[in-house]
Amino acid sequence: MSKPTLARGTRDFGPEIMAKRNYITDIIKRVYSLYGFQPIETPAVENLSTLMGKYGEEGDKLLFKILNSGDFLSDVSDEVWCLRIAQKLLPAISDKGLRYDLTVPFARYVAMNHSGLPMPFKRYQIQPVWRADKPQRGRYREFYQCDADVIGSDALLNEVELLQIIDDVFNILKLRVAILVNNRKILDGIAAAMNAEDKFSGVVGALDKYDKIGWHKVAAELIAMEVSTEGIRLLEKIVTFKGTNREKIDFLHTQIGVTERGAQGMREIEELFAYLNELKFENDLVLDLTLARGLSYYTGTIMEVKALDTQIGSMVGGGRYDNLTGVFGLKEMSGVGISFGLDRIYDAIEELNLFPPRVMAATRVLFINFDLTSQKYTCDYLQKMRKAGIAAEIFPDMAKLKKQMKYADDKRIPYVVMIGEEEQNENLLSVKDMASGVQEKMSFSELMEKLGAY
Amino acid sequence: MSKPTLARGTRDFGPEIMAKRNYITDIIKRVYSLYGFQPIETPAVENLSTLMGKYGEEGDKLLFKILNSGDFLSDVSDEVWCLRIAQKLLPAISDKGLRYDLTVPFARYVAMNHSGLPMPFKRYQIQPVWRADKPQRGRYREFYQCDADVIGSDALLNEVELLQIIDDVFNILKLRVAILVNNRKILDGIAAAMNAEDKFSGVVGALDKYDKIGWHKVAAELIAMEVSTEGIRLLEKIVTFKGTNREKIDFLHTQIGVTERGAQGMREIEELFAYLNELKFENDLVLDLTLARGLSYYTGTIMEVKALDTQIGSMVGGGRYDNLTGVFGLKEMSGVGISFGLDRIYDAIEELNLFPPRVMAATRVLFINFDLTSQKYTCDYLQKMRKAGIAAEIFPDMAKLKKQMKYADDKRIPYVVMIGEEEQNENLLSVKDMASGVQEKMSFSELMEKLGAY
Repeated sequence: MSKPTLARGTRDFGPEIMAKRNYITDIIKRVYSLYGFQPIETPAVENLSTLMGKYGEEGDKLLFKILNSGDFLSDVSDEVWCLRIAQKLLPAISDKGLRYDLTVPFARYVAMNHSGLPMPFKRYQIQPVWRADKPQRGRYREFYQCDADVIGSDALLNEVELLQIIDDVFNILKLRVAILVNNRKILDGIAAAMNAEDKFSGVVGALDKYDKIGWHKVAAELIAMEVSTEGIRLLEKIVTFKGTNREKIDFLHTQIGVTERGAQGMREIEELFAYLNELKFENDLVLDLTLARGLSYYTGTIMEVKALDTQIGSMVGGGRYDNLTGVFGLKEMSGVGISFGLDRIYDAIEELNLFPPRVMAATRVLFINFDLTSQKYTCDYLQKMRKAGIAAEIFPDMAKLKKQMKYADDKRIPYVVMIGEEEQNENLLSVKDMASGVQEKMSFSELMEKLGAY
Repeated sequence: MSKPTLARGTRDFGPEIMAKRNYITDIIKRVYSLYGFQPIETPAVENLSTLMGKYGEEGDKLLFKILNSGDFLSDVSDEVWCLRIAQKLLPAISDKGLRYDLTVPFARYVAMNHSGLPMPFKRYQIQPVWRADKPQRGRYREFYQCDADVIGSDALLNEVELLQIIDDVFNILKLRVAILVNNRKILDGIAAAMNAEDKFSGVVGALDKYDKIGWHKVAAELIAMEVSTEGIRLLEKIVTFKGTNREKIDFLHTQIGVTERGAQGMREIEELFAYLNELKFENDLVLDLTLARGLSYYTGTIMEVKALDTQIGSMVGGGRYDNLTGVFGLKEMSGVGISFGLDRIYDAIEELNLFPPRVMAATRVLFINFDLTSQKYTCDYLQKMRKAGIAAEIFPDMAKLKKQMKYADDKRIPYVVMIGEEEQNENLLSVKDMASGVQEKMSFSELMEKLGAY
C-alpha cells in the first residue's frame, strides 16, 4: 500500500505539541473554574436540522455532512434522482453533520436541559470543531475552540468577569495583549447618526476592515454604498479620534445618541467601564469604536484580544447575544461568551519563545536494561518511584547501551540509571545527569531525594 | 422550530458527568505518564483509504463516511450514476470518514513519523471514536477510548508494565477486578492438538462465548463444525481445568506443545508469569485459556479485565500485534497495547457508588449580590480568592435572596457569603455553611483560613 496521508486541513499532535497545547488549555480550564464555570461536552456529530441555517448560507456550505449509514440511496425519490443536483440530493442521503462551532450545540444543550440547570448557567467547553474551509497557513479544517458562556443573565457583571478571565489567562501565559471592547448598539447609534441605518451591515463590514485597509479604502467603500458625505465625515471623526476610554465616551456623547439603541449602547459601555475602572487589570482595556466582530449574532458588548509583541490575528473573540436559544424554542435567554483561539495563542507563545522550558517534563528517570538481574533490581525501584509520583521507565529491550542512551536523549529524560554487577554488590546506583554529563554513584534514597521525592 | 434532539447514539455530558468522567481519565493519564507514555492526538477525520479494509467487511459498513464538500456529484461518472447503487456511488462522493478506533490512526501516525520518534515509542491517546452501530443500552455511536501502546519492541517486559498499569488504575479507582491473560499462540497450539487447525476461527469464536453460553453449547457448535470427538474432549479438559496459573501451565504442557507456535506460546506465557510472580499485584492475575478477544489483529499475549463486584462486560482489552503498521508500508514493528473502556468503568464505579463524594467540587464560595455597594466589596474579595486558587463566584444579578440560595444549592457550593450594611460597617462577612445551615460572622482572613488558603 502507498504511503498514508492526513486528510487535508487536519493535523496530528505529537508528544511535544500535545504538551504545549495542554499547557495552554490547562491554564484556560483552571481560570474558567476559578470563576465558577463548569465543563460540558457535546457530541461531534449533530443532526443537520440543529446545524443548518445557523451560520448563514456560506456556513451551511462549510458544514461537513455525514452520509446516512447502510443503503443511503434507499430514501431517494425517482424525482430527486432524475435532477442529479447535489444540493437536492443532499437531504435524502445525509441527516447528520460535524459541529461547526461550540455555540450552537451549547444553545441546543441549554434548550434541551434548561429546567435542570442552575441559572444563570456558566459553562466552559474545549472541543474540536470542523469547517470545510480551504486550508491555508494557520487555517485548519479541524481545530479546537475554548469557549465559556454565561446564559440566563443580562447583568454586565458577566462581561466584567469574562474580561477578568481574559486578563488572568494572558497574565499567566506571560503574553502582553490589548483587550478591545465595543458595543454593537453603539455601532447602531453611529449608523443612525450617519443617516445610514439601511446600510448598517455594509457600513459595519467596511469598518471591520479599517485596521487592515486604512481609512481611505473604508471611505471609498462607503462612497460606493452611497453613504452621504456628512455621514462619512462623521464616521471619520469617530474612527480617528484619539484619547482615553473616558475621552472617547465623552466625545461619542456629543456625536451620537439620537436613537434609543445608540443611547442604550452608551449607557452600557459607561456602566461597563465604571466596573472595570474599579478593578485591577494587568493588560490594557481599550474602547475600540472600529471593533465590529463581523456581524454574527452579537447584540451588545463585543470583545477581542490582540497580542502586543507579535503580528497575529485576534486571539479571543466574544460578546453578548440576546436570543441564542430562541431558534431552539427557548425564548428570552440572554447570554455572553468568549472563545480562546488555541492555535493562534500557541503560535504567539511559540514565536515569542514563552513556553516554559520543562513543559514536556515527562519521564524523569530511565533505567538501563542490561540483563535479567538488573531488570529485577529495576522493577522494584520502578514500583517505588511510581508510587512516589515520579515517572520512570526501564528500556524494555536488552539493547546496546548507545541505543538506550539515545532513547533518553530523544525523550529528554534528565537522569539515566545503571545497575551493573558492581552496583549490585555495593547496593548503589550509577546515576548519569544527562544535562551535565556527570555520572556518580548513590543509594536509591539519595536518588529519590535528588528527584524531590521526600 | 420544533424541539431539538441529539443525533441517535450520541450524548451530552453535563457538569456532573464531566466531573466523574474527568476523575477517571485523569487517573488513567496520570498512571500512563508514570510509566513513560506520552500523549498524542490524531484527527477525527481520516482519509477513507486509511480506514477502509482495516476492520473487516462489517467494520467498513460501520464507518461514518463524510460527503465531499461543494458539488459532491461532480466526480460521478454517468456509468456509476446509471447503476444507482449506494456502494458503487460511495467512492465518487466520499473520500473521508470518522475514525473507528485509535489503533489504526496510531499505526498511520507511526508509519508517517517513525524516523522522528523515540523507539520504542510509548504513546497514550484518549479521544472519541465513531461507529454506525445500532445504538442500545451501553452502546453508543460516539464514545471515548483510552489507549496506550508500545511499538517497536517485542520484549515481554512491555506486557508486564501494561498489566501493572491496569493494576494501578483499578487500585486507585478502588474497583476490584480480575486481570485475565492468555496468548493467541496457545490457542493455535490447542487447535493443532485438537486436529482442528483448519477450523481455527470457528473454534476460537465458540470458545470466546464459553463464559456466556457454557460448555454444552460450545460443544454443540464444535460438533456442527465437525471437530472430532477427541478434539472436543481435549478442549473440554483444558477449558474446565481448575487450578493455579502454575498448575494450568503444567497441565497444558502435557496436552499441547506439538506445534512450533503452541510451544512458542507456552514459552511466552511462562516467561510472562515468571516476571509477574516477582511483582506485587493488588488484583488477581488469571491465566484464562478460554480468553480469545475475538480474533482481531492480536498475535501474542491477550488481556482482558473483569469487575469482581458487578456484572459488567470487559473494562479493558489489549494484546500484542506483530505487524500493525505493515499495512501502511512500515514492516517489522511489533507492538502491544491496552484500551480502557471509559463508559463501562464509569458504569461500574457509579453502580458500586465509588465516586469520591466531592468529585464535582467546583466553586467553593458564592457571594450574594445585594446591591452595587456589596458588589464592590465582593469584587475585591473575589480577586483575592481566585489569586489564592479558590474558585469563587458572585451571583451576577441582584436577584431575590431565595433565588441566589437555590443557585448555591444547585451547584453544591458549600459556603455562601453575605455582605450587608451591617457587615460592611463591622468589616466582617456573614458566612453560611450550606451543609450544616449554620451562619456566622467572620473576617475575610478567617474565611480564607477556613477554606484552607493559608
